[in-house]
Amino acid sequence: MQHDKNVTATVGHLIDGQIVHEHGRSQPVFNPATGASSTSVELASPALVERAIASAEQAFAAWRETPPLKRARVMMKLKQLLEQHADEIAQLITAEHGKVLADAHGELQRGIENIEYASYAPELLKGEHSRNAGPGIDSWAEHQALGVVAGITPFNFPAMVPLWMWPMAVVCGNCFILKPSERDPSSALRIAQLALEAGLPPGVLNVVNGDKAAVDALLRDPRVKAVSFVGSTPIAEAIYAEGCKHGKRVQALGGAKNHAVVMPDADIQNAVSAMMGAAYGSCGERCMAVPLIVAVGNETADRMIAGLKTEIAKMKVGPGSDNGNDMGPLVTRQHFEKVKAYVDSGVAEGARLLVDGRGLKVKGHEEGYFLGPCLFDEVRPGMKIYQEEIFGPVLGIVRAHSLAEAMQLINDHEYGNGTCIFTRDGEAARHFTDHIQVGMVGVNVPLPVPVAYHSFGGWKRSLFGDLHAYGPDAVRFYTKRKTITQRWPSAGVREGAVFSFPSHHA
Amino acid sequence: MQHDKNVTATVGHLIDGQIVHEHGRSQPVFNPATGASSTSVELASPALVERAIASAEQAFAAWRETPPLKRARVMMKLKQLLEQHADEIAQLITAEHGKVLADAHGELQRGIENIEYASYAPELLKGEHSRNAGPGIDSWAEHQALGVVAGITPFNFPAMVPLWMWPMAVVCGNCFILKPSERDPSSALRIAQLALEAGLPPGVLNVVNGDKAAVDALLRDPRVKAVSFVGSTPIAEAIYAEGCKHGKRVQALGGAKNHAVVMPDADIQNAVSAMMGAAYGSCGERCMAVPLIVAVGNETADRMIAGLKTEIAKMKVGPGSDNGNDMGPLVTRQHFEKVKAYVDSGVAEGARLLVDGRGLKVKGHEEGYFLGPCLFDEVRPGMKIYQEEIFGPVLGIVRAHSLAEAMQLINDHEYGNGTCIFTRDGEAARHFTDHIQVGMVGVNVPLPVPVAYHSFGGWKRSLFGDLHAYGPDAVRFYTKRKTITQRWPSAGVREGAVFSFPSHHA
Amino acid sequence: MQHDKNVTATVGHLIDGQIVHEHGRSQPVFNPATGASSTSVELASPALVERAIASAEQAFAAWRETPPLKRARVMMKLKQLLEQHADEIAQLITAEHGKVLADAHGELQRGIENIEYASYAPELLKGEHSRNAGPGIDSWAEHQALGVVAGITPFNFPAMVPLWMWPMAVVCGNCFILKPSERDPSSALRIAQLALEAGLPPGVLNVVNGDKAAVDALLRDPRVKAVSFVGSTPIAEAIYAEGCKHGKRVQALGGAKNHAVVMPDADIQNAVSAMMGAAYGSCGERCMAVPLIVAVGNETADRMIAGLKTEIAKMKVGPGSDNGNDMGPLVTRQHFEKVKAYVDSGVAEGARLLVDGRGLKVKGHEEGYFLGPCLFDEVRPGMKIYQEEIFGPVLGIVRAHSLAEAMQLINDHEYGNGTCIFTRDGEAARHFTDHIQVGMVGVNVPLPVPVAYHSFGGWKRSLFGDLHAYGPDAVRFYTKRKTITQRWPSAGVREGAVFSFPSHHA
Amino acid sequence: MQHDKNVTATVGHLIDGQIVHEHGRSQPVFNPATGASSTSVELASPALVERAIASAEQAFAAWRETPPLKRARVMMKLKQLLEQHADEIAQLITAEHGKVLADAHGELQRGIENIEYASYAPELLKGEHSRNAGPGIDSWAEHQALGVVAGITPFNFPAMVPLWMWPMAVVCGNCFILKPSERDPSSALRIAQLALEAGLPPGVLNVVNGDKAAVDALLRDPRVKAVSFVGSTPIAEAIYAEGCKHGKRVQALGGAKNHAVVMPDADIQNAVSAMMGAAYGSCGERCMAVPLIVAVGNETADRMIAGLKTEIAKMKVGPGSDNGNDMGPLVTRQHFEKVKAYVDSGVAEGARLLVDGRGLKVKGHEEGYFLGPCLFDEVRPGMKIYQEEIFGPVLGIVRAHSLAEAMQLINDHEYGNGTCIFTRDGEAARHFTDHIQVGMVGVNVPLPVPVAYHSFGGWKRSLFGDLHAYGPDAVRFYTKRKTITQRWPSAGVREGAVFSFPSHHA
Repeated sequence: MQHDKNVTATVGHLIDGQIVHEHGRSQPVFNPATGASSTSVELASPALVERAIASAEQAFAAWRETPPLKRARVMMKLKQLLEQHADEIAQLITAEHGKVLADAHGELQRGIENIEYASYAPELLKGEHSRNAGPGIDSWAEHQALGVVAGITPFNFPAMVPLWMWPMAVVCGNCFILKPSERDPSSALRIAQLALEAGLPPGVLNVVNGDKAAVDALLRDPRVKAVSFVGSTPIAEAIYAEGCKHGKRVQALGGAKNHAVVMPDADIQNAVSAMMGAAYGSCGERCMAVPLIVAVGNETADRMIAGLKTEIAKMKVGPGSDNGNDMGPLVTRQHFEKVKAYVDSGVAEGARLLVDGRGLKVKGHEEGYFLGPCLFDEVRPGMKIYQEEIFGPVLGIVRAHSLAEAMQLINDHEYGNGTCIFTRDGEAARHFTDHIQVGMVGVNVPLPVPVAYHSFGGWKRSLFGDLHAYGPDAVRFYTKRKTITQRWPSAGVREGAVFSFPSHHA
Repeated sequence: MQHDKNVTATVGHLIDGQIVHEHGRSQPVFNPATGASSTSVELASPALVERAIASAEQAFAAWRETPPLKRARVMMKLKQLLEQHADEIAQLITAEHGKVLADAHGELQRGIENIEYASYAPELLKGEHSRNAGPGIDSWAEHQALGVVAGITPFNFPAMVPLWMWPMAVVCGNCFILKPSERDPSSALRIAQLALEAGLPPGVLNVVNGDKAAVDALLRDPRVKAVSFVGSTPIAEAIYAEGCKHGKRVQALGGAKNHAVVMPDADIQNAVSAMMGAAYGSCGERCMAVPLIVAVGNETADRMIAGLKTEIAKMKVGPGSDNGNDMGPLVTRQHFEKVKAYVDSGVAEGARLLVDGRGLKVKGHEEGYFLGPCLFDEVRPGMKIYQEEIFGPVLGIVRAHSLAEAMQLINDHEYGNGTCIFTRDGEAARHFTDHIQVGMVGVNVPLPVPVAYHSFGGWKRSLFGDLHAYGPDAVRFYTKRKTITQRWPSAGVREGAVFSFPSHHA
Repeated sequence: MQHDKNVTATVGHLIDGQIVHEHGRSQPVFNPATGASSTSVELASPALVERAIASAEQAFAAWRETPPLKRARVMMKLKQLLEQHADEIAQLITAEHGKVLADAHGELQRGIENIEYASYAPELLKGEHSRNAGPGIDSWAEHQALGVVAGITPFNFPAMVPLWMWPMAVVCGNCFILKPSERDPSSALRIAQLALEAGLPPGVLNVVNGDKAAVDALLRDPRVKAVSFVGSTPIAEAIYAEGCKHGKRVQALGGAKNHAVVMPDADIQNAVSAMMGAAYGSCGERCMAVPLIVAVGNETADRMIAGLKTEIAKMKVGPGSDNGNDMGPLVTRQHFEKVKAYVDSGVAEGARLLVDGRGLKVKGHEEGYFLGPCLFDEVRPGMKIYQEEIFGPVLGIVRAHSLAEAMQLINDHEYGNGTCIFTRDGEAARHFTDHIQVGMVGVNVPLPVPVAYHSFGGWKRSLFGDLHAYGPDAVRFYTKRKTITQRWPSAGVREGAVFSFPSHHA
Repeated sequence: MQHDKNVTATVGHLIDGQIVHEHGRSQPVFNPATGASSTSVELASPALVERAIASAEQAFAAWRETPPLKRARVMMKLKQLLEQHADEIAQLITAEHGKVLADAHGELQRGIENIEYASYAPELLKGEHSRNAGPGIDSWAEHQALGVVAGITPFNFPAMVPLWMWPMAVVCGNCFILKPSERDPSSALRIAQLALEAGLPPGVLNVVNGDKAAVDALLRDPRVKAVSFVGSTPIAEAIYAEGCKHGKRVQALGGAKNHAVVMPDADIQNAVSAMMGAAYGSCGERCMAVPLIVAVGNETADRMIAGLKTEIAKMKVGPGSDNGNDMGPLVTRQHFEKVKAYVDSGVAEGARLLVDGRGLKVKGHEEGYFLGPCLFDEVRPGMKIYQEEIFGPVLGIVRAHSLAEAMQLINDHEYGNGTCIFTRDGEAARHFTDHIQVGMVGVNVPLPVPVAYHSFGGWKRSLFGDLHAYGPDAVRFYTKRKTITQRWPSAGVREGAVFSFPSHHA
């Protein structure tokens, strides 16, 4: 494992309210804009993971008794702290992930919205109460905490995706083990420290850095009652199978290949501008990125291409830390090579490469993992660049004759995470949203990421499990239903009193 | 109108984001602990009220368009500001109302909880959506803002009761006119200023001080769509009739005479301690105060009395600004005289006055409106001190033979605001809570004020209207339902595209 | 009071499960298709109304205790009975109201849908439960029945509007007094009898026929806790003021003047066909009828007029009992004269009468109250036929330059019951539904009557009160919220047991 | 495989609306009261299962488009048909399962309640709608059907458990494959036929009889999106692991060992009477049966035992078809032997057998699988009769010193399905319900089976998955969330109209 000579810091773990270093295995964390590493991250042993679980279990007894309102107030306070520390956290994200600072701020802001929703806990945890379910019988449901639950999160949103999970889990009364991506672990850890500062008791939120060994320890341990995962589909599928085999509840969110349908009546300028962000924002390293346009009609395709080429020509690619840039580097050298190979394969399979970003050099950052924006026309089902998730700045145009054909393409694809349609027509929009086999659907909205008070999740092989991430579904995922049926025996103190307490009034 | 010579400040109004002085009618605001007045409050003319309404109406167009999430964030920010300014606001309350500082802080804290609930607006404003209400027909409900709404609030919780109303009203998208009590107007006005600082646009919340003239202007003006009122029952009834006559929606909360039933199996020590706060806290000037104990069985009554006498002997009465005191003065000289007259009448009607607070003198505060705690035994229905709301530190014991008799007393009373039962018995509690004709019911909880995420309201002549204050009911009160039914014609761009856009793919 | 010689039956009242005849005042019920009367209806005295109220109050004690599931099952059974007796009830409607049989069946069907919704009572009555509202403190809300409630209903939907009210009221645990329209009282009474047959206990639903004297008795009586009213705006306003003056909760639905906006991009054929039913169905005697088209652009207006004239030419007007007819007579001779006078005034005020239905004679029914369909062009604000609710088969075209102008017209009108827009454009529809000051909005749906699981209500002077009719709002209107806060003393049988029961196991 | 000579009928399958016979493998169905078999049941081949799936998938396209209200009405009609055919179905249950007729009727009634709840579909399927999630952006959630889903059900409630599943699944728009227990398949099949008669289209509900081969085919097939299972824990666990491995959503309900805690202050007579049904009803073959009493204090234990012995002495055991009997036979000979062996083991391990049902002979039914009621005292953790689910008429008493000890026993047990406490004390009940690690909790209710409008599910190893059976959770289990985010481009027909349609009005 290659370490840069400038490594000066090691990212450890947060257990029971303390930063912990195990001094065992570790791996370097690179700055994608320079290719250099000034940090390494520890990789937790199974024993350390178990220590974190033990800490969480210990904290659970008191935390479950804490009224939801008090738990919620920790979230309100954390929101304030994150707003105060936003620059610091955005810089951590950019330094390890590469995305431009404005994008890092945007990511954090989305995470804060999940914290805001978590602060509604007293409302969200209300159960249903039925008086006279039978004569003199009342029945009600409580949503009780599970105990210790875990989250395993990907590199592409190092701050936001953890915030999809643990705030909802802890306001529901659980204690949490977070295993962030080992590529860019620092922002999640920093946020966890701020959560302690905001009043979260030690042990309620633990962070363990690590790789498959840590994940396996979490999946195996019977004290972990639930696992939330976000990552690629093959891993999601394996996590789902393995976690369920151990009797846990699991929600595992996987990959995507989101299509945008552009109808002939669309506002093309708006669609072009929306697609620029959707395709190239954060280098396309988003599960809600839109790497495919299905243009209905050749004229539509031609107009979209003309607009996109104009916009692409204006794009600035360079280090994310420079606010003037529109797009930063890819996350790792390996990933850079992989994305480039996809572009090669697209050419080889016969798609027309209209804009080629492969030759890009960013002056002064020659070791950075920069790939310029790429644009393909005549992408077709069956091509690798059509079927697989590239997770890079590569946008492809597919030409279709009709909305029906466009929808068939989408419904036949393995993934069903997000999609959108650009149109002015109410009927086309309604037909599309109703019949498309995709979990998150936009109408003239290219990245239909649900707001924090709705829930996030795809269909088909983009999500394994039944409950979506964050929002209302998270309450149900992070709690177990307890249903109480109550009847009181009739002859108690009430009647007794009549006989026992004759009064001098008489 | 008598003005103290030391009056140095005049409380004005807040309209369109500015403090406004009309220099018309005014009246002094007294410090009940000293009987002196260092402030006066302006009494708005109808023209000024109309100006406030005009400001609110103007602000409405933009405010209704502001996404609920943004409106909610103003509340989150206001919560922070109130926590920072808690001491200042508590002092304003104590200086004008007289209650002890700890109690003023408690009042503010309860108000902050209403602000927290208001910050859940994105969740609370969700409407219900039905796909395929008919074939190809969707239907959904939106909760849209009313426009300009008003609140008229009492002296006894000068900070909290306004916060029951306007935060929910404004997060629902309305603009608000608050008319606080002219006895203690300063804290509500200060909080409104902080709301502006928190980001509420000018005109969204206006405060007009005044008396009946201002109230009448609000009730008459057709631009005011809804009125929330808290006060005494005769005024509540009149406001309800008058507001409804003008076609408005009105919720008018009135008086109370809350009974606590103590069962023979109760934890007497706990009941005594709970009743001390419930009867004498804030001088009994609370609509949820408990001025009556119904003891079931003489032994219960005797044990309660013994305990209460011991505790009363320890009470310290004096200026609210001194943290060592348990109870401050009554709010005004007139009210002091009125409460004293109730005690006289109780003696005259045959109740046994066990503890007499009428002779109390607080050294150095001889002009303050201090009345010591009073305790009656053998209070009976028909006596004035049984039937009427005293709003003073006067607790009466009623003796009953059975729970059935105790409940009959409560159900026969004009008011139905709050009540509670002290017992260990599940069946007694269930029977009581089910059959008692009271809106807010405690089991071993003397002041069952609903938490901010439930709603506040009494039954019988304690509330006129159908929706309770704050909590879930407030959403419905401060919004009007719009139900949309949508079907799209079938032959639109979708089919059109098939014919119009033959592709070269073929 | 003119009685037909053929009167053979008298419609009485249903009190405490029995048909009751007072033999006091009565008035004839006419068949609008013939102008003859074969029935008269008794007009209850205040004493009889009070007897009905007493019966309801008596029944309440047991009915409130009946589990919601059992109450709901009465509704399920009633649905079956109504389906079995549908022909009989439709004939009663047609004989007294005049509408064509298919329309009468449609009305009944809509009423049955309200019964279906009422059968969901166990779900609808669930309250919210909060564990640990504070440490060891639980809090929950119950929706308890009010007691005796009343409904006053109009002639135009003699079966359906009563079914908007009483099924929801009774499944919530209330007992009900229905005062149907004295013009066509028989169907509501017959349905009430079937409700008894379905298992509703005597006294839970009482029907009193009558006029203002009966209404006043209901409004005055303190035992009646809530009043639902549907009728014209002047009466609604008076009922609201009077009921509220007596401290009741009131919802009073009034008149309407619903506009349909037709955009240039609308599917004109669809809009024409939709408007035929919306304008002339049930002779326009519906509060959701659409008597005004606002055509955006002259071309739109001209195309609509061409289509409407063609369709009107095909319409068959005649007795409702003949299934071949599209439209029956108006409800009474007075109403016939009134509608005709409106047409006269439209001509006088300068609107262009394109189709004149005033001269219509229906062969063999010369004494029936038949008016042919009328169509005006160039209707303008200010004209009587624009401002007032005609409640007849009179459709007017208003020409507008833009959607903005069309919407301003609607928002300026006194009424805000229903409206709709015909367009294919998603943006136009969204803008319209968001900003229009109307409670029920259709997109390509001419009569956007909410389905039974949403709620019905207009804005502005079309509804007085805060809660809409039927659907979710009805639960809140027909129940009062009780909020319970519960804490148990700590040292009970639980700890006691440790000491008291040493076991031989040791 | 042993066939009785009197077998005259073969139970087939229901596919695409037709009864289908494959004439492949089959096995006899026995009458437990006689030990004879007059029926056999076909065991579906994988090919037949796939045919059923294909039928379901085909039916799905139209069924998902059917408005929820129409789907719900099929349930209302089915309820009527089941009430009409109740005797027939109860007899089928008794003939194959053995339970007494009254119990079979009770089971069917519970199933009908699930149908009633399913008929609330229009209410239950409402999604959440947010206007202005962002400026001009609306967002809402729809609960769309999954497609083809399957249910695998146990022998002990052959009619009810299928009705927990498929009615909710189909009203949500899914098509269903039911695989009932091969021990007693007839009632579920008969009910499915009635569902067709009630209007369920062919293919929407298919029934395949079979064994592991059929189950495996369902678990493997990618067209089956979700699986609901009720049975023993080992099978539930395997189904959960296998179904999840194939990417499906799975809810798998397993075994139970429900404890009833009896406190010293309990109404003992009530507790005894409740326990008789809870322990011996349906021979204890219920996952909510209560085979263990934890008596707090020896006096409590002794009083319970005295009462139980008296009641047991009165019990009548015999064929379920005779209404005079309290308890029928066990379900199969193998199960009879297994339960008897448990009793033997209890004696061997040192529990005191107070009542021994092993020697019971039912005259005229010597070949029936009858076991008399058994009662053990001094059952202790570690004994096989304490740890394992017996599913027979064997009740054990465990003696505890305190509620804390009783609760520790329960919380330490592998299962967490149901439990209850008998007490009069509010605090004991609240403490118990809050802290007990069990999903369904009764207070003075021995079998706290949630009513149909709440959800059914245990904790710990009694349920695998996150959503419970029937009630509100079933909606979420049988639907996938689709979240739509919609914004309309600004310059559409609305502005266009201003320019394009100058009017002659000017």
